[in-house]
Amino acid sequence: MEDIVERFLAGNRRALARVISRIENETPEGREYLRQLYPHSGRAHTIGVTGSAGAGKSTLTGALAAEYRRHGKTVGIVAVDPSSPFTQGAILGDRIRMQDLALDEGVFVRSMAGRGALGGLAPSINDVVAAVDAFGFDYIIIETVGAGQDEVEIAGTAMTTVLVNNPGTGDDIQAMKAGILEIADVLVVNKADHPGADTLASQLQGLLNLSPKDMRRPPIVKTVSTRGEGMQELAAAIAEHREYLDEHGLLQQQREKNARHQVLSAARAILLQRIQAATPDEQLDGLVQRVASRDLDPHTAAEELANVVSG
Amino acid sequence: MEDIVERFLAGNRRALARVISRIENETPEGREYLRQLYPHSGRAHTIGVTGSAGAGKSTLTGALAAEYRRHGKTVGIVAVDPSSPFTQGAILGDRIRMQDLALDEGVFVRSMAGRGALGGLAPSINDVVAAVDAFGFDYIIIETVGAGQDEVEIAGTAMTTVLVNNPGTGDDIQAMKAGILEIADVLVVNKADHPGADTLASQLQGLLNLSPKDMRRPPIVKTVSTRGEGMQELAAAIAEHREYLDEHGLLQQQREKNARHQVLSAARAILLQRIQAATPDEQLDGLVQRVASRDLDPHTAAEELANVVSG
Repeated sequence: MEDIVERFLAGNRRALARVISRIENETPEGREYLRQLYPHSGRAHTIGVTGSAGAGKSTLTGALAAEYRRHGKTVGIVAVDPSSPFTQGAILGDRIRMQDLALDEGVFVRSMAGRGALGGLAPSINDVVAAVDAFGFDYIIIETVGAGQDEVEIAGTAMTTVLVNNPGTGDDIQAMKAGILEIADVLVVNKADHPGADTLASQLQGLLNLSPKDMRRPPIVKTVSTRGEGMQELAAAIAEHREYLDEHGLLQQQREKNARHQVLSAARAILLQRIQAATPDEQLDGLVQRVASRDLDPHTAAEELANVVSG
Repeated sequence: MEDIVERFLAGNRRALARVISRIENETPEGREYLRQLYPHSGRAHTIGVTGSAGAGKSTLTGALAAEYRRHGKTVGIVAVDPSSPFTQGAILGDRIRMQDLALDEGVFVRSMAGRGALGGLAPSINDVVAAVDAFGFDYIIIETVGAGQDEVEIAGTAMTTVLVNNPGTGDDIQAMKAGILEIADVLVVNKADHPGADTLASQLQGLLNLSPKDMRRPPIVKTVSTRGEGMQELAAAIAEHREYLDEHGLLQQQREKNARHQVLSAARAILLQRIQAATPDEQLDGLVQRVASRDLDPHTAAEELANVVSG
């Protein structure tokens, strides 16, 4: 065990992969790795790339990683979107040579989509990001589909959230009105060579103009990520947002917010495990059946369970 | 309080709206309403309508509700998608007269998108559905965006999940490969008058043909929901799925699965409240700051918190 941590800290990628697997499977070993490695995390700039399916998030993620690599920076990619090519076990791309990234020692790609897509337990994405961070990557890009509670929370853990839009899906604007804009630090109009890109950019600008004057307005960056166009501008916009966070003391505030959320979620998970460990199967099954047959409501049943570990 | 429950059970819609507000705000009053009303729930057929933004879920939901109304059935609609027109406080539609639905006493529409979109606490959607169910609607349609952990779970609570696809967004196929198909009981190719609808239908059929022979293969229904086309077929496919569930004893199994999930989630929430009530602010703040500064990992901090209510 010590050996794995040592090899991890010496930069061994197999050790990183193993640590992540243990963390993902929520084994005691994984917890112990995390405990030992956590003090080494917190140095990477974490970037959330979010947007609906088909917006081109994966290609953009690859192109942005390539841009950072050109400047000698290392990049970890954590893909949470089940529709991401990264999560299909293959890194493919037509024009951009994403396979180059796969062979690049300065890039690490990890997919976490499997469990979410099948409706399993919430994956420990923050813990995985912490491990990738502790390994020493300069940037970590977290690719998420950007809808649903969990996705919003994941985006919330990134220091800079990039919202990717593409021309032709007018419904995105509706979604953004409903609050998604509030999480975006940088707006991307991807596929900027398609008709409608300028219209989309103006619509977004129009939305931004409606936001309160004292709020920071996210810049709009046009990209054609299949050709790597606009990546310098995107990297600059991300760097600028990082500076903004630093200058306003917001980074520390965000770190505390995320820490609070993670600690409370983890405490909840621990208590749930204790409930399950302390409750005989027959008792839990009995309660569940009473709820299923509408004899009892879920909250009253839950009170009974909660009292098993905390009276 | 008794009065509200009585009025609710007598079919008073204001009482229904009030009960839902209390449930949404998670007040003790809301819990008590739910406790009293829960035994009256479990009679509606719940239908999840899911699919990416722009797939036409809202229009389809409206058209399907209109189809049920033509047969004298009552319909509750719970919209969870932040991009849904239902959740924008307006029920609008070009060709289908959705305003008719708004004025129809046999239809009840409730939006729950606000909190999710802003990254707040998980809304108590199951509890709201239980209340609408207890009120006596024949069908409850739950409209969700269909991506992200919560959305998948919400879809899981519906008896029949309808996955809406539309031609022209090839990425949906990718997403489905990754597991979304596993949650779909009925597949809809919406906007079937658009070019590419037949191609999409064949692609979906091709995917279905790859699934194990002993698995039920969801039917594919073509619709043009703006004109109400295909709604009879969709209602028939939903009814057929309901029969399938009944015949194979799967309805009871699903009810138990949902009940288990709801009871455990509620127990977790109760324990979290107890932690927060039992922990002095300074202690929680101190732990959070140590995690934020990477002095302590979130799980170790969480253990400490969990021990406050359960040693």
